[in-house]
Amino acid sequence: MTTYVERLAKRSREAGSFVCVGLDPPGDTPVEEVASRNRALIEATAPYAACFKPNLAFYEQFGIPGLHALEVTLAAIPNGIPVIADAKRGDMGNTAAAYARALFEVWGFDAATVNPFQGHDAVEPFLAYEDRGIYLLCRTSNPGSATIQNATLADGVPLYERLAAEMPAWSANVGLVVGATAPGELARVRALAPRTTLLIPGVGTQGGDPADVVAAAGNEHGMMVVNASRSIAGAPDPAAAARGLRDALNAPSP
Amino acid sequence: MTTYVERLAKRSREAGSFVCVGLDPPGDTPVEEVASRNRALIEATAPYAACFKPNLAFYEQFGIPGLHALEVTLAAIPNGIPVIADAKRGDMGNTAAAYARALFEVWGFDAATVNPFQGHDAVEPFLAYEDRGIYLLCRTSNPGSATIQNATLADGVPLYERLAAEMPAWSANVGLVVGATAPGELARVRALAPRTTLLIPGVGTQGGDPADVVAAAGNEHGMMVVNASRSIAGAPDPAAAARGLRDALNAPSP
Repeated sequence: MTTYVERLAKRSREAGSFVCVGLDPPGDTPVEEVASRNRALIEATAPYAACFKPNLAFYEQFGIPGLHALEVTLAAIPNGIPVIADAKRGDMGNTAAAYARALFEVWGFDAATVNPFQGHDAVEPFLAYEDRGIYLLCRTSNPGSATIQNATLADGVPLYERLAAEMPAWSANVGLVVGATAPGELARVRALAPRTTLLIPGVGTQGGDPADVVAAAGNEHGMMVVNASRSIAGAPDPAAAARGLRDALNAPSP
Repeated sequence: MTTYVERLAKRSREAGSFVCVGLDPPGDTPVEEVASRNRALIEATAPYAACFKPNLAFYEQFGIPGLHALEVTLAAIPNGIPVIADAKRGDMGNTAAAYARALFEVWGFDAATVNPFQGHDAVEPFLAYEDRGIYLLCRTSNPGSATIQNATLADGVPLYERLAAEMPAWSANVGLVVGATAPGELARVRALAPRTTLLIPGVGTQGGDPADVVAAAGNEHGMMVVNASRSIAGAPDPAAAARGLRDALNAPSP
């Protein structure tokens, strides 16, 4: 058995890349074109991809035909490149177990994003899969996320810092989602969770800077990936956009 | 246009019931029997149901065939009985909009549970549907939920209380999910959100007491429903179990 982090590290090192390519078909795509457009995107960007990440919302928005397109999409991803389900599921007990079964057994994802709002016991069913990874939301890249995630606790610490310090102890398979749009907070999470793999959205369309991300999160293969979705898929040349992000993340610090 | 809360109040008053019947097929159900078992459960319990609530995890665990069973299930629910998607989705921006489209436009649910961990802007796309309701997780019924939801903030207030005070102001279509297993906290939420509709899980299998729930949350039609899933669907006589819960919630306080 290899763990998710081991597989990610291997692929990231071999591709020389920290790029997570988002596979998020826009809502105005004709559903019958979703799979073929994704296949073209995967072919163009696979050489530069440490991993792929479909966000399930963009398939569910088309109903069941969208999920058939997801099936075809997943089959087009070359072996050896890990695939993350961006699903942000979160529920308790046997319900969480049903979500884990769906994502890991039915769909076969290597890893999944999970919402920690219901706490440790709600996350445990995902951790029962020893060869899969989970990324727990910690400090996301949207403005409103500060309301809860940056709420100051009685000991003066913002909630996301407590989560960054506590959640990695739940399992070696726990990673964290931390946005690129607040590099100071990313650095703080890295300091609190030095051996935890990070999934970092927020570069590209949302404006986070690749050099800032590397300065904050480090550049060890398997310990972080940076997601870009629209800024790659919507670029005139997606291969060039993915290669450009790969290179920006590999550039020596100024 | 009627709002979700108006439709729920009407149905709840007409049925004389606060019971939300969960439609959560266990994982060991043969998927080809899911829809027919649900249809029988709906027929047996509809007279006592203020609303129905499928939790999407239990359909997704079967893959695409499970979602076909969900389609058939929804078609079997009599008109006039609101249906809540227990999906606990939560994401940001155009991703949240895609989830809202899936739940409200593709599937046609009257209301949906939503996770507030990413804050107000992540919830807004769901609120753009003026005739639909959302239930934001506030204080859930599982033990681990205390880690985040009961975290004490700098002003001495637990996080769930701040959420109960603030989130209803986001829209008249905001409801809250509050578990029945901690009646003192349910009463606190009700005091902070006196005109907010509540979805209350945790009676039945999880041990919450109907009389305690009514004492804490009140018994105004449209202002609360109490969910039971396994304790109704798994009972020898589901109709009797639903009727029993209806009657327990209607009993005069001792």
